[in-house]
Amino acid sequence: MGAVYGGVEGGGTHSKAVLVSAEGHILAETDGPCTNHWLVGVDNCINGINDMVQRAKIKAGLDPDTPVCSLGMSLSGGEQKAAIQKLIDDMRERYPKLSQSYFITTDAIGAMATASDYGGIVVISGTGSNCKLVNPDGTQVGCGGWGHMMGDEGSAYWISHLAIKTVFDARDNLVTSPHDITYVKKAMEEYFQVSDLMGMLPHLYRNFQKSHFAGFCRKLAEGGDAGDALCQHVFTEAGRALGRHIVAVLPKVHQDLFSGELGLPVLCVGSVWRSWELMKSGFTQVLSEAQAHGYSHFQKYSLLTLRQSSALGGAKMGAQNAGASLPLDYSANVNMFFSHTFNQ
Amino acid sequence: MGAVYGGVEGGGTHSKAVLVSAEGHILAETDGPCTNHWLVGVDNCINGINDMVQRAKIKAGLDPDTPVCSLGMSLSGGEQKAAIQKLIDDMRERYPKLSQSYFITTDAIGAMATASDYGGIVVISGTGSNCKLVNPDGTQVGCGGWGHMMGDEGSAYWISHLAIKTVFDARDNLVTSPHDITYVKKAMEEYFQVSDLMGMLPHLYRNFQKSHFAGFCRKLAEGGDAGDALCQHVFTEAGRALGRHIVAVLPKVHQDLFSGELGLPVLCVGSVWRSWELMKSGFTQVLSEAQAHGYSHFQKYSLLTLRQSSALGGAKMGAQNAGASLPLDYSANVNMFFSHTFNQ
Repeated sequence: MGAVYGGVEGGGTHSKAVLVSAEGHILAETDGPCTNHWLVGVDNCINGINDMVQRAKIKAGLDPDTPVCSLGMSLSGGEQKAAIQKLIDDMRERYPKLSQSYFITTDAIGAMATASDYGGIVVISGTGSNCKLVNPDGTQVGCGGWGHMMGDEGSAYWISHLAIKTVFDARDNLVTSPHDITYVKKAMEEYFQVSDLMGMLPHLYRNFQKSHFAGFCRKLAEGGDAGDALCQHVFTEAGRALGRHIVAVLPKVHQDLFSGELGLPVLCVGSVWRSWELMKSGFTQVLSEAQAHGYSHFQKYSLLTLRQSSALGGAKMGAQNAGASLPLDYSANVNMFFSHTFNQ
Repeated sequence: MGAVYGGVEGGGTHSKAVLVSAEGHILAETDGPCTNHWLVGVDNCINGINDMVQRAKIKAGLDPDTPVCSLGMSLSGGEQKAAIQKLIDDMRERYPKLSQSYFITTDAIGAMATASDYGGIVVISGTGSNCKLVNPDGTQVGCGGWGHMMGDEGSAYWISHLAIKTVFDARDNLVTSPHDITYVKKAMEEYFQVSDLMGMLPHLYRNFQKSHFAGFCRKLAEGGDAGDALCQHVFTEAGRALGRHIVAVLPKVHQDLFSGELGLPVLCVGSVWRSWELMKSGFTQVLSEAQAHGYSHFQKYSLLTLRQSSALGGAKMGAQNAGASLPLDYSANVNMFFSHTFNQ
């Protein structure tokens, strides 16, 4: 058996693990639940990761007691140095047969590593949201990624919250809703199984689960697709919010990233991007406004999506960290779904 | 010994208990920590209440094994029917010597019962915020009071959050701060004992304590008093937010409440009101705008503050619920600190 490298993509709702050969071939993939340690705690996080990787070993016909060469993890919530060091220390101690070496990066960087080795902007909108610019020289500039208490603008959590808050504010006569709330209120009562606003309190506090709360976004996407104006409104606002994250890092984008064939490459990660058509007007408007106000070298941008889990980029970075180089076919890993050239 | 009635004021940070004689005299008062069951859980809530009331009995020279006639509790978070019934059932079962009967109302209604039996508007801004209109006929209309995940606008939590979010957004280049962030950033690092924004994550998630988070508001008040523009800005915004709660219930205010000597009586409860001077411009502006846009019978309003704990109003309502009537001297229970007559 040749060298095997593991990778993990850890999201706020779902996770994935992948095993890759030295030639860059995928040997096995497995799925698991949320492994964001801020949301589920360190124990659940590392148990979940171990479980996925061990199942992948068995699926690939490997001995589960033989550690992989490296495990590179692309984790939502994988930013704070002290916290990720603790994760690695705990994994090493508790699961000595898991891997020979460990590497943790953020979900944004893992996604970028899956798509390109040249850089670009990653905008994540899944359960939470985050934006990261990676320049060709490897330098990074972030915006967001602070979680639902301090950001997550444009994420599924944020969209769900915005819609529900609109219902609360309308009931309170505190803010007038821009559109009829009937559909959203009814969808909320059905999704959360409540009969009034008071019933929402346990979902917001005692039994709060970010992933479940954010899941309401799917119902709003359905409403938006079916023509409900308030659902469409919250997605337009989400598009605007995600666009603003890109505008926030624009001043730090290296000149070379603007000049490729795609224009500025924006890698869009997370399930909310499936509702691109609902977000498009808000998103494109914010970018056009920014371009018009002083970014004359910003003439085109393209939105890309991953065809592979960012666990693959995690595996690549984990291998790199262990001194190995995994050859990835980047062009096979991405898809372009939207491109815009500004009027000159 | 004559009949003794107990009252409790339960806040998001502090709580109080009071014992009152049938003549309305205060026999003893005690203090305790947060008893908001949404924040500390049912067990801590009822243990805290029992502890305060039993200490009050001893302080008043009463036998702690003799139940008081009634216990009326004015609780932040005391709105949801099913939840308060569970609190009462648990208290009755676990502490049979505490009281013969139980009654729970919200902090807003308990405060109003302490100030008046004629009604008015209560605006609470402590750890959280809430607004309740009580009309002379006893009917109630609320705005807010949904907690930090869905409201709390204008509260200490909200003010702290707004200031900190301004620092995060400035760092991210996501939103430009209206004023220099230096003071707020430094005060945040000192108060939360962190050296960067990443260090705030445990305070927002794993170790989040609403009361501690909201306590940062005191540092912002100090900054505002010392002339820091961003601190002053967040309090002006808080004044605006609290004013908007009043405007939200204005359409439901009974005509008679406008026509007393004080004009519309607004009872202001909670520690944030101590920073009234910092909030005044935002608050008065919102009310003046609302008055100018169609409330011609709204000619004057007065802001009142309680000189007694709303545990007293809780005791009154608990006694009432048990068939007794406690005589309270309302005029001795309130203070007017601001009054405004609109230009005709």
